[in-house]
Formats: sequence, C-alpha cells, structure tokens
Amino acid sequence: MAGNTIGRMFSLTSFGESHGEAIGGVIDGCPSGVVLDLNQIQLELDRRKPGQSKLVSQREESDVVQFLSGIFQNTTTGTPIGFIIKNKDQNSDDYDHIKDQFRPSHADYTYYEKYGIRDHRGGGRSSARETACRVVAGAIAKQILSLHKVNVKAYVSSVGDFSLQKKHTEVDFNLIDKNPMRIPDENFASEMIEFVDEVRKNGDSVGGEISCVVSGCPIGLGEPVFDKLNADLAKAMFSINAVKGFELGSGFEGAKMSGSKHNDPFINEGGKITTKTNHSGGIQGGISNGEDIYFNVAFKPVSTIMKDQTSVDTTGNEIAVTGKGRHDPCVLPRAVPIVEAMTAITLVDHLLRNRTTKI
Amino acid sequence: MAGNTIGRMFSLTSFGESHGEAIGGVIDGCPSGVVLDLNQIQLELDRRKPGQSKLVSQREESDVVQFLSGIFQNTTTGTPIGFIIKNKDQNSDDYDHIKDQFRPSHADYTYYEKYGIRDHRGGGRSSARETACRVVAGAIAKQILSLHKVNVKAYVSSVGDFSLQKKHTEVDFNLIDKNPMRIPDENFASEMIEFVDEVRKNGDSVGGEISCVVSGCPIGLGEPVFDKLNADLAKAMFSINAVKGFELGSGFEGAKMSGSKHNDPFINEGGKITTKTNHSGGIQGGISNGEDIYFNVAFKPVSTIMKDQTSVDTTGNEIAVTGKGRHDPCVLPRAVPIVEAMTAITLVDHLLRNRTTKI
Amino acid sequence: MAGNTIGRMFSLTSFGESHGEAIGGVIDGCPSGVVLDLNQIQLELDRRKPGQSKLVSQREESDVVQFLSGIFQNTTTGTPIGFIIKNKDQNSDDYDHIKDQFRPSHADYTYYEKYGIRDHRGGGRSSARETACRVVAGAIAKQILSLHKVNVKAYVSSVGDFSLQKKHTEVDFNLIDKNPMRIPDENFASEMIEFVDEVRKNGDSVGGEISCVVSGCPIGLGEPVFDKLNADLAKAMFSINAVKGFELGSGFEGAKMSGSKHNDPFINEGGKITTKTNHSGGIQGGISNGEDIYFNVAFKPVSTIMKDQTSVDTTGNEIAVTGKGRHDPCVLPRAVPIVEAMTAITLVDHLLRNRTTKI
Amino acid sequence: MAGNTIGRMFSLTSFGESHGEAIGGVIDGCPSGVVLDLNQIQLELDRRKPGQSKLVSQREESDVVQFLSGIFQNTTTGTPIGFIIKNKDQNSDDYDHIKDQFRPSHADYTYYEKYGIRDHRGGGRSSARETACRVVAGAIAKQILSLHKVNVKAYVSSVGDFSLQKKHTEVDFNLIDKNPMRIPDENFASEMIEFVDEVRKNGDSVGGEISCVVSGCPIGLGEPVFDKLNADLAKAMFSINAVKGFELGSGFEGAKMSGSKHNDPFINEGGKITTKTNHSGGIQGGISNGEDIYFNVAFKPVSTIMKDQTSVDTTGNEIAVTGKGRHDPCVLPRAVPIVEAMTAITLVDHLLRNRTTKI
Repeated sequence: MAGNTIGRMFSLTSFGESHGEAIGGVIDGCPSGVVLDLNQIQLELDRRKPGQSKLVSQREESDVVQFLSGIFQNTTTGTPIGFIIKNKDQNSDDYDHIKDQFRPSHADYTYYEKYGIRDHRGGGRSSARETACRVVAGAIAKQILSLHKVNVKAYVSSVGDFSLQKKHTEVDFNLIDKNPMRIPDENFASEMIEFVDEVRKNGDSVGGEISCVVSGCPIGLGEPVFDKLNADLAKAMFSINAVKGFELGSGFEGAKMSGSKHNDPFINEGGKITTKTNHSGGIQGGISNGEDIYFNVAFKPVSTIMKDQTSVDTTGNEIAVTGKGRHDPCVLPRAVPIVEAMTAITLVDHLLRNRTTKI
Repeated sequence: MAGNTIGRMFSLTSFGESHGEAIGGVIDGCPSGVVLDLNQIQLELDRRKPGQSKLVSQREESDVVQFLSGIFQNTTTGTPIGFIIKNKDQNSDDYDHIKDQFRPSHADYTYYEKYGIRDHRGGGRSSARETACRVVAGAIAKQILSLHKVNVKAYVSSVGDFSLQKKHTEVDFNLIDKNPMRIPDENFASEMIEFVDEVRKNGDSVGGEISCVVSGCPIGLGEPVFDKLNADLAKAMFSINAVKGFELGSGFEGAKMSGSKHNDPFINEGGKITTKTNHSGGIQGGISNGEDIYFNVAFKPVSTIMKDQTSVDTTGNEIAVTGKGRHDPCVLPRAVPIVEAMTAITLVDHLLRNRTTKI
Repeated sequence: MAGNTIGRMFSLTSFGESHGEAIGGVIDGCPSGVVLDLNQIQLELDRRKPGQSKLVSQREESDVVQFLSGIFQNTTTGTPIGFIIKNKDQNSDDYDHIKDQFRPSHADYTYYEKYGIRDHRGGGRSSARETACRVVAGAIAKQILSLHKVNVKAYVSSVGDFSLQKKHTEVDFNLIDKNPMRIPDENFASEMIEFVDEVRKNGDSVGGEISCVVSGCPIGLGEPVFDKLNADLAKAMFSINAVKGFELGSGFEGAKMSGSKHNDPFINEGGKITTKTNHSGGIQGGISNGEDIYFNVAFKPVSTIMKDQTSVDTTGNEIAVTGKGRHDPCVLPRAVPIVEAMTAITLVDHLLRNRTTKI
Repeated sequence: MAGNTIGRMFSLTSFGESHGEAIGGVIDGCPSGVVLDLNQIQLELDRRKPGQSKLVSQREESDVVQFLSGIFQNTTTGTPIGFIIKNKDQNSDDYDHIKDQFRPSHADYTYYEKYGIRDHRGGGRSSARETACRVVAGAIAKQILSLHKVNVKAYVSSVGDFSLQKKHTEVDFNLIDKNPMRIPDENFASEMIEFVDEVRKNGDSVGGEISCVVSGCPIGLGEPVFDKLNADLAKAMFSINAVKGFELGSGFEGAKMSGSKHNDPFINEGGKITTKTNHSGGIQGGISNGEDIYFNVAFKPVSTIMKDQTSVDTTGNEIAVTGKGRHDPCVLPRAVPIVEAMTAITLVDHLLRNRTTKI
C-alpha cells in the first residue's frame, strides 16, 4: 500500500491516470444490504465533470461509472465494489509539448524525482481526474449516511478575495446547485460568475474556499488520540488536489478569542443536551458531539494557466511553458462534490468503527 | 486498533491517562543502528513540561522518560522501543467536583457518550498530558532526521489577535528558546509575556498560532493520492489537542491569489533545480520538492479557565462549573515541541516509506 | 477494508464475483522502473485457467487480463496498477437451482448468514475464480523477485493418499509443467492422471498437497514478532480456497524429532555461512536465513461433486443437492500457480519492508 | 509498524526483550464496559511461567502484570490498556559466552544479519518471554469471549512420536490443568511426564502438538478474501515461536479423502442448522459456521539443549556451543495458554469486525 487507500473499515482504493484507458477503484467494507440509487451516483459524478459551464474546463469527459462487483440486484452484498470510469476524449498529443517540461506548481517535477519515470499525459496520476473515483465512493457513502439521517452539504463560500457574507447557519442549501458557481446566494453568485469569466479571459486562474456542513451526525464518531474525527477530516481534505488550508469550527478566527468567549456552554434543551454556541464545530476531544460539524477548505488557484511562464526541463535548461489546452479558471464549483465525497467517506468509516466501541 | 497509533512504518502507539499510574508508548519501526542522545530526548520533554514559567501550568510534572526496550548500549536495535513516564503529583481529588459535570468545550461529554464510562480524573485520556509520549517519539525522530540533515523548527507566531511581523524566512531560530513564549523576537515576546500574564490574572485563556519550518527535506517524501505528505501533516497537527486550523505554504491567503502570481517558477540555480517563490510550501502533488516546508497551526484558547461557567451534569441538570486547579492561560509555548514532534514523526515515516518507491 | 487486501507495502486489493461482469484488482506499492514482460503474466494466468485438460474444469474461461493503469511504455510507474479480467462463458442459469440451497462444505451458508444476502451465481465472491487476480499480482511479483535472483517453484507432491517419493532437494523443477498434473516426475504423474480420471468418472473429487520451494531468498526478510515471514506465508496460503494445512521445513514430522537431531548446525562453506541441515525451512526467528524456504500446503477435495448430496435450504427444509455443471475433480494442478503467486506477493512485500530496517 | 502489532480492531502491540528492564504491550480497541477479573489474568500468566514443574524451565520469572491505563475501577474504559511485566532474575552474565556465537536453530544469526546489531542477552526480542504479553491480551480477550459464551480450550495432544488417542470431541477439558503436561488424559500424561523427564536427563529437547477447540463461536466471523478466519488463525499460530505446522479441521488427513466423504452435509436439528460431520473445522469460505473450530499446531523441539553443538561465530569461525543455563526440555505445557491467547485475540478481533458487516 502506497497511499492509494483511504479509510480503515469503509475504504476506497483508487487507481488510474488521466490519459490511461480507465480510472477506477475498489470500495471495501461497504455494509451489505444497502439498496443503492445508482442514478444518484451518476448525478454526483455529473456535478464534478468538466464542461458544465464556461466557468470550468471545456473538456468533455463522459465520466460514466461502471460497477463490476459487490452489487447484486441493486443491493450491496458486503463484498468489494469494483468500478471503472473509462477515459474518453483523451488527446494525449495535447501533452506532447510538456513531455520534458516541469510545469510550475504542478507535480511534474516531484513525480519525476520520486519515481524516476513520468506518465506526462495530462498530469498522469496527479491529475484531478482521479477525484472522480472519490465522488463515486462518496455518493455511496452519502446514501449510507442518509439511512442514518446524516446530511453533508458543501458550497463555495469565497472566490479570490471575495467572500459570502453568510454564516453556515444562515445558508439555504437548496440554492447551492441553482447556479454554476455552487454559491448559495443568487447575487453573490452572479458577481462571481462575472469575476471568474474575467479571470478566464485573462488566461489566469483563481482560488477560493469551500465550506462544508454536516448535520444530524450522531454523537460518538471519532477515535482518540490520533484518529480524531477532525484529524481524519483534515487528512481527507488535504488529500484533495490544490488544498492549502483547513479549519474546523471557529478555526483561525477562534485562535484570536479568549477561552471565556470560545467555550461552548452545555444546555439542556427540552431533555436534549446541546451547546449554546458551536465554536467547537461539532467535535470535542476528537469525537462528534451531535452539533453541526462545519469547516472551511482553502483551494489555491489551479496551476494550469493560459499565460506563458518560465520553468526548467528535465535536463535543467530554462524554458518557457506555453499555456495550451482546456482548463478550469476556477476549480471550486467542481470541487464541491469532492469535498462532500471525502467528508462522507470519512464519516461512514467512523460510523462503522464506532460500532466496536462498547462491549 | 482504535486510533492510538500513528505512522505506517515508523509508528507510535501511545497509552495512558493523566491521572493513572503512568503514560507511555511503543515506537515500532525505528531503524536499527541509531546512536541515541538520551539526554536530548529528556530536554525535549522538559520543553513541554508544565511549570517552566508563570505563563504555563504550575503543576510540577517530572516527566522523566524510562526506556524499557529496543535500545541496547545507547543504540537502537530495530525492535520496538517501549517507554513509560510515571504520573506524579496526581491530585485526583482535585477533580472530584467534576466527576458528574460536563465542562464546556472539554471532552467530558463526548467521552461519556461514546464509551458509557469516563475516567474523570484530569481529563483522563483526553488530557494533553498524553502528548508527552509524542515528544519522546518525536525526539527520536528528530535525531534520525538530523542524520539526514533535516531540520524541524517550530515557534509561536501569533497570540490572540497579535501576530509576529516576520516571514518564516526572516526568523532566527536560535531565538526561539530564549524566552518563555518561544517567540523568536525579543520585543514581541516581551509584549506577549505581559499580555498572557494579564489573561492569567483575569482567570481566562488565550489561543494563537504556531508556525513550523522544515529545512533540508529530501525530494520525494509523500505518497499520492491519499497519503500526500501535506495530508499526513494535516492529520498529525489536527491530532493535537486544541488545534482548529492548519495551512500549508500560502495557505488561506493563497486562496485569494491568481494562478499567475501563485505559481512557483522553477529555476536552475547553479545546477540545482529550485523555485523562485515557495507558495507551494515545499510540497507539490503531495510530494516534497526540496524547498522549505512551512505551515501554520491554529490553537483555540484552552478550555479550562478560572471563571465560573454554566453547563449540565450527567443527569442533564444545569449547573455552574467552578474554575479550580492549576492550568495554562496560554498553551502555545508548551505546544511548540509537540508540533515539532508530530512533524518529525510524519517525516521519518515518509522517509522510510520512500525507500520502497523504486525498484 | 474488509479483508480484500493483502500486503503492507506491496499489496493486492481484489474484487469481483465469478458471474459478475468482471473480476479485477489494484496492485499498490509496486516499485517504479520494473520493465514488465506482459506476455509472461498472461502465461501464468493460462496455467491457472480451467479447461487445460480433462483433469480440471471444462469451463472455458478466457482469463485475459487488461491493465488499466500504473504501466507506461511497459514499465511500472510506481502508481497503482489497476486491472480487470472480464467474465465470459458465465451461464448464471446453471446456478438457478441452487439459489436457495446451501451446498455442503461450500460457503453458501456462511455468506448468507454473515451478509443476509447472497449472490448465488457460481459461488459469487467465494468462488476460486477470484484467485485469477492473485495470479496477476503474483506474476508481477515474480518478475520483481527475478531481478533479485529469487526463484519460486511449486508443484503437486501428493494426490489423495499417494505421495511423490522425492524430497524438495531432489526435484527437477523443469519437469513441473511437462504434464497436466504439475507433478515433477513422469511416472508418478502418469499414475495420478489415471487416478484422477477415475475419480472424475465417479463424479467425485480428491484433495492432495502442493509443495513450494523458494531459492535465492536474501537473508533478513520477515519481521518479528507477529509479521514473521512464516506467519505471513501461513496466512497467504490459508487465504487460498480449500487449504486445510500448512507446514514449513520439517513441519509436523519435525515435531516428532529431538532437538539434537532437529537443530541445524551453522557451518562456514568457503566464507559463506550456511547450515548443514535445513529443518528450519529457511526461516529462523521469523526471518529468512538465506537457505531454501520450503513448505507444504494441504488442499481438501473440492466441495462440488457430481453425486447427489443431502442438505438444507434457506428456510431450513432438508433437500437433495444435485451435482451439475462443469467442475474440477482435482484442483491441485490449477492451484500450483496460485501457491506461487501468494508466495511471491508475500516475499516482495517483505523485500520492500526490509529496506526500512537499518538507518 | 514493523511487525509488533496483531489485530485490526482489537490489537496487541508488544515490546520488550528477555533481559531488558521490562516487557509489555498496549491493547488497543478493547471495548469499554468490560468488568475485568484481574486475578484471572494473573492466573493465565502463571500457566505460562517457567518453574511450574521439573518438566519446564527452572528460571523463576515472577511475571506479574502491572496495568498502567485503560482500566478504571476494574472496568475497561475503551482507551488503550498499557501494561508491563518487569524482568526479574535476569542473569545477563549467563549469556556472555554466546555474545559472538550463533546458536544452531536460534534467531541469533538472522537478527544479527537483519539488524546489524544484536541484544544477545537471552535471545533478546526473539525470546519466547515476549509471549507473556500475548497471554495478558489473550486473557482479556477470553473474558470478552466469555460474555459471548465462546470457549477456547487448548491442550497437548502429541509429544514427540506419541499421540493422544482421543478426538477433540472426546476430550474432557477439565482434565487439562490436572497434570503438568496439560494432557487431558491421566494415563497418557503420566507416560509423557516420564518420557520428557528422560529427555531432560539426556540434555535434549522434544517437540509435539497442541490441539485447540473453540466452542460456541457465533456464525459469521471472518472476512473474505484474505482475512479469512482460518488465515488469521494460521498467522496467529505461526507467529508463536517454534511453530512448524498448522492444520484446521480435517487438515493434512483431509487432503487424502474424497469429496463425497469430506463434505459436511447440512442438517436441521430441531430448527437449528448444523452439520452432520465437521471436517471443515467450523469454518467455511473463511467464515465461522457455528460448529466447533478445532485445529492442531506443531511445535519443533526447542533449540536450546544441554548438549554441545558445532556452529560458527560472528567472524565465521567454526566453534563449539556449550549447553548451559536453565531451559525447557519440552515447551508444550507452557505453550498451551499461548495458543489459547492467540486464538482468543483473533476471535475478538473478528467479533468486532463483524459488527460492521451489515447496514
């Protein structure tokens, strides 16, 4: 195992390069007896696929998932779920010019140095195309969470220097998919659509933040000491391409507060123990406390831009890298289902692990 | 395994509650042939221990590590290194009054709900006392990294709303341990000492940030896809008590930049490939690129304060929780060696894993 | 992860049911830079496939492996190797009659009880068809071992009550594939071909033993205490369908000897330390000592027979199970490449792990 | 992790050398709420300790277990259980003469070659003293199994060339601890006591077999494909020092049978589905079927004998190794609790894992 598996009980092992024959994965530890809505899984994939709007890459990836095992008469059997997504529209020639180039802030250089060999076509294994496999596993995880009344919702909350002026508690999740930016606010979404289009015309890219909220999470998920629920969420998010930051609950702002302000007093609300505030972000001592889990994830601007840049090639010569191809000026809208997927995978894993806690 | 082990090849399994007989751990996968400076390990523990100054807890924990195996004539033998740190000065009676109380923002409630039983004495397993074991393993990891010319340095860079006005490249690491705040700037340190003392007098607590810099890291550490070096660092940091945020390289600020500004152009510096800027924070595609790895970690203010707070008890009655005992108004200085330890453990793990990459 | 992955550094995760669309797997941790002979991999699969002779199942499984990732220009890239083998000739209807039956000594009953649902077609996940994936991973492992001059050879050494009267040191490995029984002795092979044909005509099945020899194994493979090389080999063998026994070196006979006879004295043979005898079977203290590793694996007779048997159905009614379909009277010849594959996977895993032993 | 941990959910990580300060371990994943009989744990340790009779080593190891964490008011808390057993009576000088010697069939040579350094005192990490830690974890596992009405019983069934003439179904488990040989048959026990005493007088050692029976095991334990219950039991047994063979149910004899004889017909016994015979040994398709699980484990004669032997030293010189010290002529009686412990650990691990199988 060399880093291509996540999860201890509910796990995804993924494989595939962006321009090979197919990408795919194996979901192991999926409980038996889950009646799957296969159409819903495809819909999640569609949320991630390129070409949804002019804001994102115009590549036409069909991203049709094919299940090969583990599902019998639409029901999970408890055996591993193998699946593939064929790579179509794979113009490998598009990448011939970068065969010996190290594109700035891409993984070209590090892969080449680590492995001594590089499948240069479209970023190979380092391409975000791999995240489609996560969306498949995440879509199944979300259906399992649904059965337990747990809801995972992510949305774009910042683009470049601009931020949504709403707390997670004020957001109407129904608005998320109403616009191509996946911003749950019509006005702010319109502004950002214009902004990103401007960025695109300039041949540049822009980063931002995605916020995620988990409601209905049962108390008790997460293991001390190292496998705290927040620690596993942090890892899951940082395993997504282009992520540069993660903060839970009060986050970096919370670090500026005093303890007397930050502490969340417990109250008894009609027989249910809850907290007056939720700076903890739904996790205390690494274990979910039943309140909303919410966090922000920072994404850097994507490295592929349409401007010329300086770099070096494999022999160390300084070169110019030409912007070329079809790429995303802003990856955020497509990253929303990925953040949800990684969150759902992590939660289901801990849901199962928690079953072994008490005698 | 229920979350008390970290690391795949170089691993620490820790055990122990704050008021049991001892805490301790097992370091498995430590390579043989490392000639250890045992005194240096104790010095790292002393950096973490309470009672170093009036800024931190006045409990006198002796924190003397006793090695029980895996070391023969000061040299590691390749077999597991078992160790214990006895708990002294353990006034369990100090905690009798909280036996049935859920202290705000502590782990009392979640542990009780998860396990159905709670060792209430001093936070039990959720106490930060457990981190002493990490410092032991981290101190050994740092000695291994030293042999590979890798250097890990952490320091306090923010306290409450105040921040050190220096980039990580401008910091003189020799100043870190010159003051009890572990701030590598004499003036700012003096101000913060006064500030924290004020907080202490108010019976309150305050959070802040710790920055960490890894220099000399070889190229190639980190595994795609899920075990990216940054993903494992994020998990390692978020496994530390009170951490609410983690950002690598440009971090949350980087999310506001355009791709053309954020990208790090490769240059050839006298035969060595390096980057002009380092917004990537030394990691690209999840793999170290040889540049400095740097990141910030946000800590919330510690939950234990000397003010009265409202809460509920195990039967759901609303109660007043009285501040009592000896605690840290600001945990940051003592967390510096912990951040270094978790960083070092993660790096050594990936150093060993990387040996299996090429045929 | 629910048991479908083997290996810690070099690992195989397999998926697939006998009558689903395809079986397949992911090999993670394969070192980069291995120039693969893809034809050789297919040849190993051919050694396992049914229909090779009248001694084994007459099903015509094509068993063509398709690699989807991890190999670029015939060379491993260090990224996961995904592969599938399509299921053809899958007459699911053949199995309609057993839909509600628990066939004696099959896994029908235990799967049904464990999962609450059963893909009854051809044994589903419990079918030995899954072992084709192991042969793929094993064939790659064998090519890696070849680069390190390690040789893995298995052969049929017993059939029913009849045993090959040759020690492993007297066997000519070149004879193994000269006959359909994979017995490295022309006369004994002929006798056994007749014997198995008799068993087939009776509609019955027969078990036996496979012996395996590893030569050229480097000193030092295997980890104390729990991951001893012999412990991991025992697990690998017992993970193969129908295995009932495993013995290393002197094995069960060795238990009858006195220590003074059993001990293997070290000798210096022209500067090379070796042992006069090899009752240890090449492993001491769980670690390879450079001598031949040899072991025997006992296989029970396959459960599917062409005779009628009594059993119960899913509602507990007593029923008669009718023998029907195309099956192996003796699985041993086809199991030879599987034993080799599991041995090779285990050895490569430990070869890589051993690289992390010394500083 | 370098092989010193066993179990995925219920796990033991052990540490310690025979002549260091202490051995010990960490049990992680023990469910909370188990009310422990600590005295019973000590009794299991006493069954393993040397000096119980003249048949086994006369070293006086006190083997008193000290629990350091994870138990509060005699009840498990769900946090890791750390424990140590101090090494007393550790005459390291006894071993000075073998400092540069490779004792035949010991692990001296392989450890030296693997690690480049050797703690020669009493075998160091390779000493069977480490198994005391397994007995501690196993004793806790047995108490958990008791709550689920599962019973694990092991006994000596062969010594050298002599075998107990009773099937496992005919054995009265109450007789096991009635004699120092742990043979559940008074007459055969007496004969073997005499036989072993003869061996001891000759300065030699003798091997044999231990049989183990698990009754009351719930249906459904074990994971396909690689973590079959039998595969994990095989590994657990082969991780014990001196084990050379493992067979489940019909075992090596079963390999000689025809399918029609070997198959276990299902029957309905008053509403309960059971099998007429139990050649399967209680496991089908890697999953427990509710019948008795039974298996045999072959132990080679212990390597330490009181006779002079030839060998080589670390510089390759041929030498004579002198028998000296206090050792076991027959390790079997002391290995009985170890076999039970490893069985119990494996079963509890799968008991917990099985809770995640169904939605």
